[in-house]
Amino acid sequence: MQRPPAEIGQPVEDVDTPALIVELGAFEANLQKMARLAKEYGVHLRPHAKTHKCPAIAHLQIRAGAIGVCCQKVSEAEVMVDAGIGDVYVSNEVVGRQKVDRLAALARRARMSTCVDHPDQVEPLSTAARKFGVSLGVRVEIRVGNRCGVPPGVSAIDLATQITALPNLRFEGLQAYNGKAQHIYMHMERLVAATQTVSDARATREALKKVGYDCLYIGGAGTGTFTIEGQSGIYNELQAGSYLFMDLDYAKLRGPSGGPLDDWQHSLFVLSTVMSRPEPTRAICDAGLKAVSIDSGPPALDGNSRAEWVRGGDDHSGWLYADAGEAPAIGDKVRIIPGHVDPTVNMHDWFVGVRDGKVEALWPILARGALT
Amino acid sequence: MQRPPAEIGQPVEDVDTPALIVELGAFEANLQKMARLAKEYGVHLRPHAKTHKCPAIAHLQIRAGAIGVCCQKVSEAEVMVDAGIGDVYVSNEVVGRQKVDRLAALARRARMSTCVDHPDQVEPLSTAARKFGVSLGVRVEIRVGNRCGVPPGVSAIDLATQITALPNLRFEGLQAYNGKAQHIYMHMERLVAATQTVSDARATREALKKVGYDCLYIGGAGTGTFTIEGQSGIYNELQAGSYLFMDLDYAKLRGPSGGPLDDWQHSLFVLSTVMSRPEPTRAICDAGLKAVSIDSGPPALDGNSRAEWVRGGDDHSGWLYADAGEAPAIGDKVRIIPGHVDPTVNMHDWFVGVRDGKVEALWPILARGALT
Repeated sequence: MQRPPAEIGQPVEDVDTPALIVELGAFEANLQKMARLAKEYGVHLRPHAKTHKCPAIAHLQIRAGAIGVCCQKVSEAEVMVDAGIGDVYVSNEVVGRQKVDRLAALARRARMSTCVDHPDQVEPLSTAARKFGVSLGVRVEIRVGNRCGVPPGVSAIDLATQITALPNLRFEGLQAYNGKAQHIYMHMERLVAATQTVSDARATREALKKVGYDCLYIGGAGTGTFTIEGQSGIYNELQAGSYLFMDLDYAKLRGPSGGPLDDWQHSLFVLSTVMSRPEPTRAICDAGLKAVSIDSGPPALDGNSRAEWVRGGDDHSGWLYADAGEAPAIGDKVRIIPGHVDPTVNMHDWFVGVRDGKVEALWPILARGALT
Repeated sequence: MQRPPAEIGQPVEDVDTPALIVELGAFEANLQKMARLAKEYGVHLRPHAKTHKCPAIAHLQIRAGAIGVCCQKVSEAEVMVDAGIGDVYVSNEVVGRQKVDRLAALARRARMSTCVDHPDQVEPLSTAARKFGVSLGVRVEIRVGNRCGVPPGVSAIDLATQITALPNLRFEGLQAYNGKAQHIYMHMERLVAATQTVSDARATREALKKVGYDCLYIGGAGTGTFTIEGQSGIYNELQAGSYLFMDLDYAKLRGPSGGPLDDWQHSLFVLSTVMSRPEPTRAICDAGLKAVSIDSGPPALDGNSRAEWVRGGDDHSGWLYADAGEAPAIGDKVRIIPGHVDPTVNMHDWFVGVRDGKVEALWPILARGALT
């Protein structure tokens, strides 16, 4: 873990770069808005901690009403439990002796649950839970996206039966997250995809109900589709994460009228220093592929939508300005909006929380690099 | 920094995943081969530490004959100097009060140098060097690639004059790295680009010589072109980094006959566990965008070139197998060859060194995330 690039009280202009800046006003507005919407819909909010990987933020989410957090990795869950988060759901298949043991060990200190999509994953969970004298919640993941999961409907019954039959496991319901649907830009197509997801979850719930299994949780939904799952009457747990920060990809989502989807605010920026000015319309800054992820498209410059990102390598980004008069000087700082927040956050060790131009918070990203 | 995913002595099958595996035999062959070639060419080797970000590996490179290392960031240099590396060149423009102070402070403990491409960058280096009572080596970067640098030729003279005139700075020569040329796949095109680079460096050296400035170092070159710069009679310092590990992009380089360029070996792999098998020809493993960088193209499966990577998200990768009979079982481990090593390494905290199927080394990637 590297030293923080800032000090509390410092003007943001003096922060060393590259730095991950969180505009606290926008961040808090996003945080409160999602909490309010979940309450309005009458569903639980269990935000995904894979976005921020930061216990300080998880605690803020819980204080605002979240019932706990999702993690994608056992090692992320370890960081959260160590920091006092009491209810952690690993929304992913946990496979391998070390991982199931570590998951079960956490259940000595927190309410832990996970999901499965194959009989081979279930028995090891029970064995580990018995070994540590704990109970693990287990959901069945159904395939509503492009990744894991059993086909929706009756296929979930065998797994529910197996979970129920094995000692130290609690059958807890369904995992039904459609990752692909989150990033469909056009409203109607996204609505169709999410409605299919809801219908798959409903069919599975009914198939389970018929043979006597109730779902405590039906969880899923991300920043792109949560209004649909949240108001479906089927889902009772929303797992969005990116809403806190937003990114260029999510900003591309259109609402029913074809305009921007909603009033989520960009709260996360990579602050970067201009280090070279090789041409009148070109600036090179110090945030490259190791500071801003490009897996979902290039980043953009905050406040200058005409400036075009040019690949500069691992530690440089080039910016091509439409007009030389807009280009910054060597030593100037620019704010970059990431294309994709999660992998961008995962390259930094600190969130630098800023309000009214002053550093107010330094939050360590303790689960950064928590891969196992 | 996360816990290591392995223990010394453990069979590689038992390593927790995802993990960054280094096959030590292949790694050592690459390490020695570059050292031998540099010696053969009669040039210095100053490998780029931005590839590995690991002092343990920097020490191995120096033991094999390197004169020191390059870093791209002052914070990387801090990690290297703290670990006892005595000669560090920051091959990048260092801009901003904190950074130049930190660079100068390092010169109390190690031989430090950096490069410039604009008069505004020079005076602050001298000020900081005086403040700490040290001397800093300064090279002029010439623009031979797509990033920073003054135009080759007489443009370098003013900067050399400025560096020479200011106290506590030593003019040390030229930085002339053509990043773009490294990744030109066809031999003849790459040769043309690198030959142009050499000719630009020669013209600049001669322009400087005419007004009385000698270049102690003319440095640059990467894994794709170092044979050209190394045998040019102009360059006397090679700065390659990726040769240690290799990646899919470098493996695409063709030699003069159109066949593979050379006998560099892939030594770096991401070990990953199959966690779900949603379809007969599809496996989902636990290494996604946070474990393998895709900025230079998708990764590949070691030992199965017919398996196709399918985007799975931040923490999953999908693999589509040509034949269901080739697909692994849940719990099986696969080895992934990254598309691009540097950003992949930068997401991990540990190298797991393996020989004959057993873990032999755990090297912390101490400069991972060293961005400032």
